Amino acid sequence: MMANLNGKAVLDDLIASRCEGHSMPQEFYTDAAVYAADVERIFNRQWVFVGHSCQVEEAGEFFTVTIENDSLIVIRALHNVCRHRGTLISRKDCGKARRLVCPYHQWTYERDGKLASCLGMHEINHDGLGLLAAHVEDLEGMLFVCLAETPPDFAATRAMMAPVLAPQRMGEAKVAKIVDYDVTSNWKLVWENNRECYHCNVNHPQYIKANFDHYNSDDTTAVIKERIDAATERHEVQCAKNELEITHKETGMATFPDPDRGLWYAANRTTLVEGYVSESMDGQQVAPLMGDYQDADVGTMRCRTMPNMWNHSSCDHVVSTRLLPLVANRPQVRVMWLVHPEGEEGRDYELEKLMPFWQLTSEQDWELCEFAQIGISSSAYRPGPYSTHKEYNVDAFVRWYLKALVQ
Amino acid sequence: MMANLNGKAVLDDLIASRCEGHSMPQEFYTDAAVYAADVERIFNRQWVFVGHSCQVEEAGEFFTVTIENDSLIVIRALHNVCRHRGTLISRKDCGKARRLVCPYHQWTYERDGKLASCLGMHEINHDGLGLLAAHVEDLEGMLFVCLAETPPDFAATRAMMAPVLAPQRMGEAKVAKIVDYDVTSNWKLVWENNRECYHCNVNHPQYIKANFDHYNSDDTTAVIKERIDAATERHEVQCAKNELEITHKETGMATFPDPDRGLWYAANRTTLVEGYVSESMDGQQVAPLMGDYQDADVGTMRCRTMPNMWNHSSCDHVVSTRLLPLVANRPQVRVMWLVHPEGEEGRDYELEKLMPFWQLTSEQDWELCEFAQIGISSSAYRPGPYSTHKEYNVDAFVRWYLKALVQ
Amino acid sequence: MMANLNGKAVLDDLIASRCEGHSMPQEFYTDAAVYAADVERIFNRQWVFVGHSCQVEEAGEFFTVTIENDSLIVIRALHNVCRHRGTLISRKDCGKARRLVCPYHQWTYERDGKLASCLGMHEINHDGLGLLAAHVEDLEGMLFVCLAETPPDFAATRAMMAPVLAPQRMGEAKVAKIVDYDVTSNWKLVWENNRECYHCNVNHPQYIKANFDHYNSDDTTAVIKERIDAATERHEVQCAKNELEITHKETGMATFPDPDRGLWYAANRTTLVEGYVSESMDGQQVAPLMGDYQDADVGTMRCRTMPNMWNHSSCDHVVSTRLLPLVANRPQVRVMWLVHPEGEEGRDYELEKLMPFWQLTSEQDWELCEFAQIGISSSAYRPGPYSTHKEYNVDAFVRWYLKALVQ
Repeated sequence: MMANLNGKAVLDDLIASRCEGHSMPQEFYTDAAVYAADVERIFNRQWVFVGHSCQVEEAGEFFTVTIENDSLIVIRALHNVCRHRGTLISRKDCGKARRLVCPYHQWTYERDGKLASCLGMHEINHDGLGLLAAHVEDLEGMLFVCLAETPPDFAATRAMMAPVLAPQRMGEAKVAKIVDYDVTSNWKLVWENNRECYHCNVNHPQYIKANFDHYNSDDTTAVIKERIDAATERHEVQCAKNELEITHKETGMATFPDPDRGLWYAANRTTLVEGYVSESMDGQQVAPLMGDYQDADVGTMRCRTMPNMWNHSSCDHVVSTRLLPLVANRPQVRVMWLVHPEGEEGRDYELEKLMPFWQLTSEQDWELCEFAQIGISSSAYRPGPYSTHKEYNVDAFVRWYLKALVQ
Repeated sequence: MMANLNGKAVLDDLIASRCEGHSMPQEFYTDAAVYAADVERIFNRQWVFVGHSCQVEEAGEFFTVTIENDSLIVIRALHNVCRHRGTLISRKDCGKARRLVCPYHQWTYERDGKLASCLGMHEINHDGLGLLAAHVEDLEGMLFVCLAETPPDFAATRAMMAPVLAPQRMGEAKVAKIVDYDVTSNWKLVWENNRECYHCNVNHPQYIKANFDHYNSDDTTAVIKERIDAATERHEVQCAKNELEITHKETGMATFPDPDRGLWYAANRTTLVEGYVSESMDGQQVAPLMGDYQDADVGTMRCRTMPNMWNHSSCDHVVSTRLLPLVANRPQVRVMWLVHPEGEEGRDYELEKLMPFWQLTSEQDWELCEFAQIGISSSAYRPGPYSTHKEYNVDAFVRWYLKALVQ
Repeated sequence: MMANLNGKAVLDDLIASRCEGHSMPQEFYTDAAVYAADVERIFNRQWVFVGHSCQVEEAGEFFTVTIENDSLIVIRALHNVCRHRGTLISRKDCGKARRLVCPYHQWTYERDGKLASCLGMHEINHDGLGLLAAHVEDLEGMLFVCLAETPPDFAATRAMMAPVLAPQRMGEAKVAKIVDYDVTSNWKLVWENNRECYHCNVNHPQYIKANFDHYNSDDTTAVIKERIDAATERHEVQCAKNELEITHKETGMATFPDPDRGLWYAANRTTLVEGYVSESMDGQQVAPLMGDYQDADVGTMRCRTMPNMWNHSSCDHVVSTRLLPLVANRPQVRVMWLVHPEGEEGRDYELEKLMPFWQLTSEQDWELCEFAQIGISSSAYRPGPYSTHKEYNVDAFVRWYLKALVQ
């Protein structure tokens, strides 16, 4: 049954109907009006990760990104919409331009969006006819845009994350590969999947070989605890050389997001299992060392931002995942692999070795999300209890989401 | 134009606007709100035929069935939705399982739906977290489920139908073939097509060779009447040997449904034309005799239940048709052929001889339904008069439907 | 955001919100309720061009046309919907029939729509059960239908247009080719594109070689003016021989439509550039002279009618474009090429020479319309100013549309 969400009052009722510690009522995953609210109140208001600055390194280089109905040219995030009659300006995913020319009637804009010329028009005032711009921030090579008029604060985010991200030097990296997926699932189910490793043992045979995330307070045996401590100690020796710090030393996932403290961002460095220096199939290095690293054995740097990004960076490569609304219950998910800027395919790395670890893990997750969507759409769906041992971050995500929805 | 069916009052107005003895107003075939009411008030409340018990003969065997948004595991009809976070449990059409394990976080259920284990959770009460179950009835090998909390009575249905169905012994039969169709037509048009043989002469050249249904009170000549009497007499001799009874001895279709007497089910035995012992292309036997039959010349056993099943059973094979809502105006129709459990393809029967009679007849009907849907969606559609000679059962169906809709 | 257009008041507000001389607010291009109003108040009330009379020359020949949900048999424009149970009668695009027989139950209609027979029915009155008819007008071989009960006046249209169209003798022509397109764009954007040549210089390299339309008051130099005068003079000499008249002698497009004077139709003869006698790739004649023409050098005859037709006719061929709603923001656009009735492909003309000029120009336009639709759907879309030099007809179209919408 679809709720008839005509007003905010009904949305408030729906939010109030959620049973704490349980998955959300069906409408949050199926109702068109909730989806519209998600786009309007979350994706159109929050900082949205769009890509890496190394994709637009040279003057005039740009890429485009679509957030639901909005297409942006990321040079300086300009709306990709002509001010004459509204036509899409760039139809390419990326490119390089001295000026931006609308193909319809050749209205021409500077790279900063100013209207440069519009031959054929009567005398008109060019002011106020520049391309609309979105706010944009470059965080150590990760680009974020915000469509809202007044964006949320970014300074605290930068202060916390920049030091952790800096040594990876993503700003100077090179894109090795981009893979796009259409996932037939509500975007929130993708996050709920991402925020727990309760499903990892059976569903991610590759991932659990490299990581300790799937152990939690209920199943971290003394043996496991010893392994983690040993791994952490080993990494810390190397990290000290590299002036890095292991900040997450426990089993289980780092707490994220944290709606009580308003934290929609997080970054930390954590350990890999013994014998692993990279999130690759066999744990061995698959590309040249990146950034400031002098040594491979530095664990992994991880960061995430609500509502749409997570990133796992090894000593030798970066994997960024970007989640964007496109049509209801069919978000576009992009996975990007970055390597050292001078890395050359075939010589320094091979995609066959670089990609499988996260390609397999990602695709395993999309399938779980799609079957969750089908089940949740059934009349037999009842919100069920989250495991306090293993799904504390799913609950944290749900609380972040419900709070963001009514801000 | 779409009606704005916001409340029951509007639906009542729409029902009141129907001109008796005529086809229904356009909205019944095109309006999304009527479709939602059809699913909610008909398919989610009535007994719905889902398949044959011979499909789940061995312990642990199951098949899944989807009714609009609801997916069921038919072992004992369990909702195919995990009680943890709502994920679809079985993604297979059918299978065999000792226990049912959700692939997401391995919550494990007994075959009767009870929660057996959910490792990784904190202490939780297993009671109340079993798989939701739908009501299920096995009627001589035909399985019916009801999604409603309190299902309609089934005892009278069983009492009337079981003696007619019994000699066919469907419960011990074997599925020879299943074919699924997506028919681009309102589900009611499929029934309206099924409930008259006014269209048979021109559209079903195979069907009319074997049957007397297409003759009615206005065109049953003395010669035809004599042929029917002779055929009935011939069958009755054989039937008596088999302890069967020919219950429909007239031309025209048996009256069904009967909303005045609340009959949403019917079964009878009727005669085939001279020279036909089976509904096959040439009327000859195409598989071993089924069930209790000692002789081929026993006419046909037919049964139907509202809202979604009809069945024609010859001495040697069964054809069941199952109609289920999936998306608006695109029901899934499944045709199933059953044979003797020991029949072996290639040795005892060939699909090329078993299938064409009903495959052709079915596909001819789907095409008619699809073109009816297009015409009815036009602004030029006006409900037209039903033939009292030939479309009495279409009118009976419409009256059954309108009554069910407001129950 | 979708407007909630529940009543006429909201539509009036939306119309009032339009800034004069600017493109229209977003909802006119994206909102489902506006689209429904467009169909109901424009396409279901105005005269709609459906094809050429030469397509139904012989007795009993017909073609079908679909306007949104309505399918018509054009013999005499009959609704293609049986009066019995609403089934589509003809499933073919065109054909020839002595009588029209519904394939479902063989209700049979005369060519004029009267119910001729319906065997199998009880005694019913045939009056009032004929096929519903739409109004139809044949204007010098161009067929128009109107679905409204009381159609707008056609007499003034005929009086103005017939003399201009007559010498082309489309009524006796032959269809050389029909190409259908699904354009993913609001139908109004197709018109807005059609009503200006501001976009021609860059986007239509073929078209601008043959025509003077793309010059306007701001860029018609003395040299251009001289060329036009010379071309006009040259054509007028030939036209005088043919008893024709060059009625549009200026640069820029003829003003059309003219909502202030209620003109939804226009026809004129205009000049081609020096060296061009036909709208072909090289300007040379590509088929035998049509109609009354004794000479190739007669410029072009052009006509258009709101809401769905434009036509460019050269001495040797006709190109008619027909725009029809089918689904929201996906109109069907048909381009038809006509030639002399005795023209024989391969001998008198080749499609490879006849088609490219308008096929390329059309396809260039559809692409522009599709990218306009994407941009306009963005949150960054702001109605922009029309060029008073070059987009006066776009503004005229918008004013015609808004007026028609509230009539």
